[in-house]
Amino acid sequence: MDIVVGYINSPEGEAAVDQGIHEAKLRGGKMVVVHSMVGGGREDSEDYLRSAEAMARVEERIKAEGLDYCTHEYVRGQQPVDDIMEAVNTHDAELIVIGVRTRSATGKFLRGSNALEILHDATVPVLCVKRDVLETDED
Amino acid sequence: MDIVVGYINSPEGEAAVDQGIHEAKLRGGKMVVVHSMVGGGREDSEDYLRSAEAMARVEERIKAEGLDYCTHEYVRGQQPVDDIMEAVNTHDAELIVIGVRTRSATGKFLRGSNALEILHDATVPVLCVKRDVLETDED
Repeated sequence: MDIVVGYINSPEGEAAVDQGIHEAKLRGGKMVVVHSMVGGGREDSEDYLRSAEAMARVEERIKAEGLDYCTHEYVRGQQPVDDIMEAVNTHDAELIVIGVRTRSATGKFLRGSNALEILHDATVPVLCVKRDVLETDED
Repeated sequence: MDIVVGYINSPEGEAAVDQGIHEAKLRGGKMVVVHSMVGGGREDSEDYLRSAEAMARVEERIKAEGLDYCTHEYVRGQQPVDDIMEAVNTHDAELIVIGVRTRSATGKFLRGSNALEILHDATVPVLCVKRDVLETDED
C-alpha cells in the first residue's frame, strides 16, 4: 500500500522522508511526497527556489533507494492538511508520515501547527517523526 | 524491531491494538502492550476488573495472530507517557502506536491529552490511529 509523506524544507521534513523510505520499503508501496506551499505571495521567490532545490534532493534520495515514488508540489492557497488528504484519497494511501518539532522551551509544541491539523483531520493513521536530536542543530 | 502499543480500554485502544498487530507483522518484531492505570485510588475496583478483562481479550487476539508479544500492566501512579517510554527503552522499540480521539465538536481534540504528552516526549516515531469512524459508535 502507498504512503504519503508531508514534506517541508526543514530538519523535520528530512526526518519524515527518512522514515517514509523505511515505511515504503516495509510496505512495498509507492512513496508519495507532498510538498505544500500556500502561494498567493505568502512565500517569496527565494523560498520557492530553495524549496525546489530541496525537493530535487529528496527525489535523488528516494531514487537511490530504488523505490517507486511520485511527488506533488502544491502552490494553490490550500492548507497542507488539505493537500495531504487529497493525496491520501488519490492514492488510496494507508499511512501519512509527517515531521513534528521537538518540545519548545515554552512547551507550546503542536498548538496551532500543521501537524495538529493533520492529526485532527486524517482518516488514515499518522506517523509522527522528530528530527534526530543527536544530529547537529541546523536551525 | 519491537513496537510498543499504548492500550486503554476504549475504541481508540482497540484501534491501536489492530494497527499494532499490522505493524508487528510488517516489522517482524515483538508487540509490547502497555496498559497504564494511575493507581492510588484514581480508579475504582470495577475499573480494574473491566480493564483486566479487556487486556485478556487483547492477549487472545494477539495470540490468535501468532505474534510474539508481552504485556506490561502498570499501576503505580505514573503518567501513561512515563510507562510507555520505560517500555520503549526496555525493549529498544522502534515505534509507539497509540489511539487518538476524533475531533470533538468543540475542536478541543488533543489538548491536555495523554496522546499529546506521548507525542511531546517520545524519542521514537509515534503512530496515531483513530477508531474506525464507520463502526457503530460505542461511547
